[in-house]
Amino acid sequence: MNILVINAGSSSLKYQLYNMTDESVLAKGLVERIGMDSSILTHKPTDKQEVTEVSEILEHTTAIRKVLACLTDKVHGVISSIDEINAVGHRVVHGGEIFKESALVNQEAKTEIRRLFDLAPLHNPAALLGILAAESNMPGVPQTIIFDTAFHQTMPEKAYLYAIPRVLYSKYKIRRYGFHGTSHDYVSKAAAEFVGRPLEELKIITCHIGNGASLTAIEGGISIDTSMGMTPLEGLMMGTRSGDIDPAIVPYVMNKEELTHGEVNSMLNKHSGMLAISGISSDMREIIEGYEKGEPNASLAFEMYEYRLRKYIGAYAAALNGADVIVFTAGVGENASLLREKVLNNLTYLGIELDAEANKIRSGDPRRISTADSKVQVLVVPTNEELVIARDTYRIVQGING
Amino acid sequence: MNILVINAGSSSLKYQLYNMTDESVLAKGLVERIGMDSSILTHKPTDKQEVTEVSEILEHTTAIRKVLACLTDKVHGVISSIDEINAVGHRVVHGGEIFKESALVNQEAKTEIRRLFDLAPLHNPAALLGILAAESNMPGVPQTIIFDTAFHQTMPEKAYLYAIPRVLYSKYKIRRYGFHGTSHDYVSKAAAEFVGRPLEELKIITCHIGNGASLTAIEGGISIDTSMGMTPLEGLMMGTRSGDIDPAIVPYVMNKEELTHGEVNSMLNKHSGMLAISGISSDMREIIEGYEKGEPNASLAFEMYEYRLRKYIGAYAAALNGADVIVFTAGVGENASLLREKVLNNLTYLGIELDAEANKIRSGDPRRISTADSKVQVLVVPTNEELVIARDTYRIVQGING
Repeated sequence: MNILVINAGSSSLKYQLYNMTDESVLAKGLVERIGMDSSILTHKPTDKQEVTEVSEILEHTTAIRKVLACLTDKVHGVISSIDEINAVGHRVVHGGEIFKESALVNQEAKTEIRRLFDLAPLHNPAALLGILAAESNMPGVPQTIIFDTAFHQTMPEKAYLYAIPRVLYSKYKIRRYGFHGTSHDYVSKAAAEFVGRPLEELKIITCHIGNGASLTAIEGGISIDTSMGMTPLEGLMMGTRSGDIDPAIVPYVMNKEELTHGEVNSMLNKHSGMLAISGISSDMREIIEGYEKGEPNASLAFEMYEYRLRKYIGAYAAALNGADVIVFTAGVGENASLLREKVLNNLTYLGIELDAEANKIRSGDPRRISTADSKVQVLVVPTNEELVIARDTYRIVQGING
Repeated sequence: MNILVINAGSSSLKYQLYNMTDESVLAKGLVERIGMDSSILTHKPTDKQEVTEVSEILEHTTAIRKVLACLTDKVHGVISSIDEINAVGHRVVHGGEIFKESALVNQEAKTEIRRLFDLAPLHNPAALLGILAAESNMPGVPQTIIFDTAFHQTMPEKAYLYAIPRVLYSKYKIRRYGFHGTSHDYVSKAAAEFVGRPLEELKIITCHIGNGASLTAIEGGISIDTSMGMTPLEGLMMGTRSGDIDPAIVPYVMNKEELTHGEVNSMLNKHSGMLAISGISSDMREIIEGYEKGEPNASLAFEMYEYRLRKYIGAYAAALNGADVIVFTAGVGENASLLREKVLNNLTYLGIELDAEANKIRSGDPRRISTADSKVQVLVVPTNEELVIARDTYRIVQGING
């Protein structure tokens, strides 16, 4: 069975085609600048040469048509006909309280995704465009939806409610949802497998550190708390997001600078975080370069970032009353060995002992970076959100066929 | 030397008269409903009967005149003349970045307190009224100012800066200040004394849990982080304050409910916290009553409160890379043994072992509630902010006299 995984943004669309027999990737690619006259499609078939095509792609339906043409192309293609795509899995950022797990797309599901536009105005409309585009290009092919929020729907009330008037929850569903769920789910399962112990008996803290970043406390395979909240703004300091601040700062700044709701959101989501502190970049690689050169603002950004990440690990150790495994994943988590080193060397009170050499090794495989004697096992596990989407889609489609 | 300690609110004024020879309290009391025609003065001389007087007290100058009349009254008084008051110490909530320690009142200091009105609009104007009222009633008597923020001025940049555009710090001084400083300072020193070790070598987490609540991470006697921020709204869930929330909730709610800056501030400061979740009360005693009866909303409020407090202890253990001593203080911290029990029994990963019996003892003295084997010593230390104010005032006045 071949499954096409689609991650649609408002002006972009990423895809991967999986052969589920061995979970191999047949091809992957990206359409950028959808809606413009010079859209770019980059197509990477696994054992063939990468191809780039610039053309006018005004909407998602055209984008998917072009992707399907690439996948079935005589030269660059990996399948001979669209019929060889058995199902399509879509990443959807916000599943609200409705979607506690991945689901098959039907009319009701699409209505619910639309209802959630209000909670995820930047993400859910784009996901729906992707679904509609796939449906019109591949009528009759089962489509599934996999949510960033679903894994966290197991959180208890004490973790997901905010201490604000309860009418705001009943009226607007204001609560903690959490994001990066497919990643936290995937790396926690992979970590249990790596350490060779049943997931059910483990306390795991997963650190998904990319441009966006979130931590999750996982007990027996279940998300019990996560650092992102109603939106992806809460929690850690990120590339361009502030993470936690005194909530009183928001009306204070709006008042002083005469900002609208949209402007203050934009300030906190796009012009804050490492970018604001360093004045240089939102990219951890450039921040670390500056830190190593002793550049004061980059150094401060790095130190704040490390400090705040470390405090969240501490908070979740308290939430779990201890941790068996800590996992680092995603772009920064997998690659920034200096960040991991600084964090872990300041967490020796947990019984963590870093293996400094192991920490420096770069690899695409799960690996241990703590010593054999370390009380807490610390791992780096490359994440694979597309594979989770493909697997969930496979499972759901098997279900309807079986 | 006798020192009068004054804590002025916008419509209230608390006072204590200390004899610094033995740090004994000669009298204390409270004026309520200043500005109304039925103000109430409650005067409690230490070895005499309490007296209550209802009269019209329209402003702070009259309030202090009445207090002085009580203190020197033939029947209820404790001194024979105003001349026996050698200095006055004032509590001031916000000292900004200017006041890193307690100071003598002079024209410049008053100007600075006025400059800080903007950061503490509810508190600093009242404090200035108290200072002016004391000056006009006791001309020539030295007055000092003791700040809730000063103890936290030792925090490093990485702890006090928010990850938001830096112009907001340079232009408006938006940063973490922290509050309850006199209390965190006092109980950390008392804790070091109690455990018989030099403050300089201790890592201490102090939990000041009253109607407002904050935690401080103290390393070698120095505040390195604290949970309240630019304002007292940030951090723990409190009686009526939300503490931390996703900052994106603020513009979202303002937009949905058409709230002004003032209204959203009021919602988060006065109508949130335990009051909002329990629907019953902001008072921990009533919440615990409800919890013990199995009332669902009170139980949820208690569990959220415990959980969030515990996570902050965990975060500060990570900030300090371990803790030697954890201190509970203030109304809730000193009295709510059930809260302490639940928190500590979920922190056994830190090596904490609660002495369940010791935890139940009520006393006005510092006491240990962890077992002799506990890796972290956990103490209850009654706070005494007035004594810190009196001691600082004494030290400053000795300085100008000596």
